Amino acid sequence: MNSLNVGLIGTGYIGKSHALGFRNARALFPHVPDLKLACVCDLDSALAESLRADFDFYRATTDWRDIISDKSIDLVSIATPNALHREMAVAAIDAGKHVYCEKPMGVSLDEAHMMAQKAEQSSVSTLLAYNYLRSPAFAHVQKLVRSGKIGRLYFFRGVCEEEYMADPAAPFSWRCSRNMAGTGALGDLGAHLLCLMISIMGSPKELVAELSTVIPSRRTGGSAETSHEVENDDVAHAMLKFDDGATASFTTSRVSWGRKNKLAFDIYGEKGSIHFDQERMNEILLFEKDAEEENNGYRTILTGAFHPPYGRFIPSAGHQIGFNDLKTIEIAMFAESIAEQKPLFPTFGDGIIIEKCIAAMVASAARRSWEPI
Amino acid sequence: MNSLNVGLIGTGYIGKSHALGFRNARALFPHVPDLKLACVCDLDSALAESLRADFDFYRATTDWRDIISDKSIDLVSIATPNALHREMAVAAIDAGKHVYCEKPMGVSLDEAHMMAQKAEQSSVSTLLAYNYLRSPAFAHVQKLVRSGKIGRLYFFRGVCEEEYMADPAAPFSWRCSRNMAGTGALGDLGAHLLCLMISIMGSPKELVAELSTVIPSRRTGGSAETSHEVENDDVAHAMLKFDDGATASFTTSRVSWGRKNKLAFDIYGEKGSIHFDQERMNEILLFEKDAEEENNGYRTILTGAFHPPYGRFIPSAGHQIGFNDLKTIEIAMFAESIAEQKPLFPTFGDGIIIEKCIAAMVASAARRSWEPI
Amino acid sequence: MNSLNVGLIGTGYIGKSHALGFRNARALFPHVPDLKLACVCDLDSALAESLRADFDFYRATTDWRDIISDKSIDLVSIATPNALHREMAVAAIDAGKHVYCEKPMGVSLDEAHMMAQKAEQSSVSTLLAYNYLRSPAFAHVQKLVRSGKIGRLYFFRGVCEEEYMADPAAPFSWRCSRNMAGTGALGDLGAHLLCLMISIMGSPKELVAELSTVIPSRRTGGSAETSHEVENDDVAHAMLKFDDGATASFTTSRVSWGRKNKLAFDIYGEKGSIHFDQERMNEILLFEKDAEEENNGYRTILTGAFHPPYGRFIPSAGHQIGFNDLKTIEIAMFAESIAEQKPLFPTFGDGIIIEKCIAAMVASAARRSWEPI
Amino acid sequence: MNSLNVGLIGTGYIGKSHALGFRNARALFPHVPDLKLACVCDLDSALAESLRADFDFYRATTDWRDIISDKSIDLVSIATPNALHREMAVAAIDAGKHVYCEKPMGVSLDEAHMMAQKAEQSSVSTLLAYNYLRSPAFAHVQKLVRSGKIGRLYFFRGVCEEEYMADPAAPFSWRCSRNMAGTGALGDLGAHLLCLMISIMGSPKELVAELSTVIPSRRTGGSAETSHEVENDDVAHAMLKFDDGATASFTTSRVSWGRKNKLAFDIYGEKGSIHFDQERMNEILLFEKDAEEENNGYRTILTGAFHPPYGRFIPSAGHQIGFNDLKTIEIAMFAESIAEQKPLFPTFGDGIIIEKCIAAMVASAARRSWEPI
Repeated sequence: MNSLNVGLIGTGYIGKSHALGFRNARALFPHVPDLKLACVCDLDSALAESLRADFDFYRATTDWRDIISDKSIDLVSIATPNALHREMAVAAIDAGKHVYCEKPMGVSLDEAHMMAQKAEQSSVSTLLAYNYLRSPAFAHVQKLVRSGKIGRLYFFRGVCEEEYMADPAAPFSWRCSRNMAGTGALGDLGAHLLCLMISIMGSPKELVAELSTVIPSRRTGGSAETSHEVENDDVAHAMLKFDDGATASFTTSRVSWGRKNKLAFDIYGEKGSIHFDQERMNEILLFEKDAEEENNGYRTILTGAFHPPYGRFIPSAGHQIGFNDLKTIEIAMFAESIAEQKPLFPTFGDGIIIEKCIAAMVASAARRSWEPI
Repeated sequence: MNSLNVGLIGTGYIGKSHALGFRNARALFPHVPDLKLACVCDLDSALAESLRADFDFYRATTDWRDIISDKSIDLVSIATPNALHREMAVAAIDAGKHVYCEKPMGVSLDEAHMMAQKAEQSSVSTLLAYNYLRSPAFAHVQKLVRSGKIGRLYFFRGVCEEEYMADPAAPFSWRCSRNMAGTGALGDLGAHLLCLMISIMGSPKELVAELSTVIPSRRTGGSAETSHEVENDDVAHAMLKFDDGATASFTTSRVSWGRKNKLAFDIYGEKGSIHFDQERMNEILLFEKDAEEENNGYRTILTGAFHPPYGRFIPSAGHQIGFNDLKTIEIAMFAESIAEQKPLFPTFGDGIIIEKCIAAMVASAARRSWEPI
Repeated sequence: MNSLNVGLIGTGYIGKSHALGFRNARALFPHVPDLKLACVCDLDSALAESLRADFDFYRATTDWRDIISDKSIDLVSIATPNALHREMAVAAIDAGKHVYCEKPMGVSLDEAHMMAQKAEQSSVSTLLAYNYLRSPAFAHVQKLVRSGKIGRLYFFRGVCEEEYMADPAAPFSWRCSRNMAGTGALGDLGAHLLCLMISIMGSPKELVAELSTVIPSRRTGGSAETSHEVENDDVAHAMLKFDDGATASFTTSRVSWGRKNKLAFDIYGEKGSIHFDQERMNEILLFEKDAEEENNGYRTILTGAFHPPYGRFIPSAGHQIGFNDLKTIEIAMFAESIAEQKPLFPTFGDGIIIEKCIAAMVASAARRSWEPI
Repeated sequence: MNSLNVGLIGTGYIGKSHALGFRNARALFPHVPDLKLACVCDLDSALAESLRADFDFYRATTDWRDIISDKSIDLVSIATPNALHREMAVAAIDAGKHVYCEKPMGVSLDEAHMMAQKAEQSSVSTLLAYNYLRSPAFAHVQKLVRSGKIGRLYFFRGVCEEEYMADPAAPFSWRCSRNMAGTGALGDLGAHLLCLMISIMGSPKELVAELSTVIPSRRTGGSAETSHEVENDDVAHAMLKFDDGATASFTTSRVSWGRKNKLAFDIYGEKGSIHFDQERMNEILLFEKDAEEENNGYRTILTGAFHPPYGRFIPSAGHQIGFNDLKTIEIAMFAESIAEQKPLFPTFGDGIIIEKCIAAMVASAARRSWEPI
């Protein structure tokens, strides 16, 4: 397989980031199939045409079913609001196309199961867009843990916090609607933290959670003094247990003033610990118990060529890669996995565990109980 | 009241820190009663005599009841293992002496209630030694919150972590025994975090917790290959709810490699947020939502004369005070509260709320349920 | 002008970064001319062909004069060792092509003057590749200074340090040769710091410098035990004066263990100060004298949409851009400047001031004297 | 020798810090002579009496010659403005008393020489109060360097900056007067940096410097609109050379907004580097070149019991000591050196090298030349 024709649905900022990744993946990762920008779709024809022109897509459309029915298209990229994921993904799989879909999977666990089932019954490749998995820093954290550098794991403590809804004056948006978004901070931000946590700790076996909506209603925009109830979580806390006795603490919030992309965690083990913070995505802090106690301390490791695939972008450590580079890595890895017919974590099937955790958190908060996963 | 005669029980590191505080309080806080080092006690006569000589105590003893029966002594300072607090404190109150007692109150909620009841029935002053409350930085955090600087509070997220038991090879100690210490990390470290949290957020109304002992047994020292079951928590996570809808996430651990005194928290509110970390005890991070969005960001405030009582120690900001200075502040404040007959938070009565939270955490972990406070 | 055909000379890491920038500039900055990858050149035909294939250049060549003589090419990009800059740039200008050239200009001030003179006599656009100028963070620093946010400037203190030659076992390379590289750390790293400093402070009027070669000879590689004298500076310090009485301190080094890209500076003024460090290129530290002294402190500003052109890459603050994005910005700005026929700082003419400073530093160190610029 | 009677001249903040150190030295360092607070002096009798009462000095006086003539006093502590150091120190030595004197030595190199000569001709012990030398963190830096941990030294880069005169509205004070203070930032702040630098690098052999007064005149206080010329440096930069080819860059400033106690340096060597910043006085950053390149990075070492004499104050790392603790260490070390009749660096004789550097900086700036030391 030398090339894949790509159809992209959605032209918001994450859609643009997809387009950039498709554009650059093969230049930086020459061993992967070429990705041809075949068609871009947006309900708004001006937006569709604009992204088409900027990124040299072959054509634009306002009807996503156009992409599904276009036999030349091999891969569909879904960068739309959560409520649309399921229908589009299922249609794409039915049409025999590979699917790259933004997280979370849908607005409910049922939707996620439908998507996973459909994917399993087909021969196409699927990937959920958990781009923070792809950072050279996080890949190194995984390597450190798997190689036993910090020994048996004691516990994980993580947060994913942003400030985009911290202002009580921020208007109601689709993200506040249960129908449109499903959960709030949980699905939008917490899903990223869950994905990283599970990649390190394995699947949790049970959890207890607490959800709160700290701003119960928000203005609906415009000049009128109307407001709408916020239907999902602004903040969620959870505690989790794993099979081997390790535990985790989890917080996600969209109302954390000052936090722009605080996807940060600590992992503690028998022989050391690791700290990571996406707001300083090119740094890893590693503490190792070692003999020289007077010089013990966290090392601030700046990512570089020793942390693949950083070197694909620039050979010099400390020069830094950025957010869009993570998308490029993700897309290159997906293209490679399609070519090699080897699934890449997290497929739609893999993603179920994340969705189950989210659903269990919602249930736990409602029932005030520990919930099995 | 111009002076108070002090009897100190315990000569370990915290006892020494008490001695230093008693020695310096009035020099730095000239308005408080003079504190005379009357008697120091340790079961080990050499240790007692050594601290006596170093700090010019009037006399030393190996029998703590000597201090209780010494009519000249006005104030008893208790710096012994947790299991001894109750008996000593009760005896001192019965003898009409003011009591300054290390946290936690005892090894059970029952013990704490006995102490509080006894204190309430008497006219003496009592204070629990939660010295981190006294830092100029924390005092400023309280002032910021109370003045409404960050508005209505959304949530609190805090940790208190050290590494002193992180090594599986660290031997069994009295801190691992339920009889001697009560809880593990919870009482030793978590109590500090609870105290700070309650000072900011008020009393929680309910909580759910999870306790784990990640190193189930430890060697009992010596050359023999004997070991003892660890009887209390290495790690505790909890989630808490407050009356006004605010929530909290809480983690404490004595097995966190790399953490020396990680008593750190974030507070998020309607108009801003605050971060504090005792490992950088002379710094406060403050984020304020303000008009100039392009220059938004956390301010790193270095404590100085604007943050009383820092100026008592040195007028220049950024020159820093240390741990022992916190004890000096605490002791000066207690001496002042005795002189003015105004209770200082947390008295034995106030301390009950902290002990209730700890007991509720233990119960919650056992019952796997939310527990009211 | 709708498009420009680009010829790139050099396929090393910086050449690849150029290629990526040319590839992406117009997708992210749709108002600039389209940049067509016409031809790539490397002496090594395999390298040339490889970059051609990866980035879809129209053709590859091993003879850079091929690019000069290709009438379809509008813009020549020079990413070769310093000793080749002059000849290539002059030939390109003579052929009527716009020139984008890596810094420093050449291996001597004479070479720089030749290049500037040639550029001035022509009507083509020229730009020196000082990409750190282009970061949204640095652009914001410039805006803060120019808007008077920190008032009249007192002094500037800056460093540009890396570790690539810190190991005495690192072999001799072209960068250690006076003929091939001119100066050492000065031209390779210090030039970047000079460019940023001059952008903020204006042109210095005089300076005094000190150069040292801390590893006087290095092995010449291979298994043989041969070595070669290092002919230029490992470390350079300088002090500079400006017309308005402000001063600067300057250090550059290629032997600073632990420093990967430590291009960092402090600017102090009447009303505040600014700190920036390229190793955390998405952060700016700003201190403002203001009324509320108890909350004074450096603000850590995370770059975002308020700091153009960050928003071209991603709208969310704290998500971060990377090194290659700086090249994309630079190339887009150059393309725009060509289209609008407005010079972009630093043209070859502008670059002379940087080269003069470097030459004055070399002279000052030799003569042990202050040198005028 | 079991005890020393102390006379303290000066009750400003540094005098108070002396008093606290004298009060606590022996409690924390039981092997040193007891230090008895015999007499405190201030021109202002209320201030003298106040410090006497607070710290239990035996008596107070307004005439410093009272202390000199008091035969019972063994040690004189000088904490007065610079212009008074020489006369007081010489008189004390003449009276056979040990002298502990604040830095800098006086207002000129001549004064320093007089003091050193007088000390050399006597049998008393002298010590200059460079308290930052005494921090456990700095002691560890010295140990690391001396043990060869970072190998042969390449260069040193240091700053000592505060903001106390940054505001153009800050009034003229004795520190701005050449007669009263000698130099400005140089003697007040730069002397500290010189002392640390020399302790690490040895004596410099030559230097070149640049001094600037960025606020040429300041109001003289009161309501009247009068002002006075500032007679010494607000900012000083220097470059230094050492015998072994190593170099240093040096900046000191009293006009650096945001800097409270920025006494910070980097030391680079063949095998690693060290960063230290007094604003985080309980932390040391160490970079070591080592085999595991993927985990290379600066370690943040939190001081603890492994860094003597930290353990005298508290055994637990990360709990932190403060500024006044440095004075206590210094005084304990001086008391020990008196008892053991072993000189402690920097004696008055040792201090000459610092004063020579300052004088050479002033001369270099005036002559615009390199000056030998």
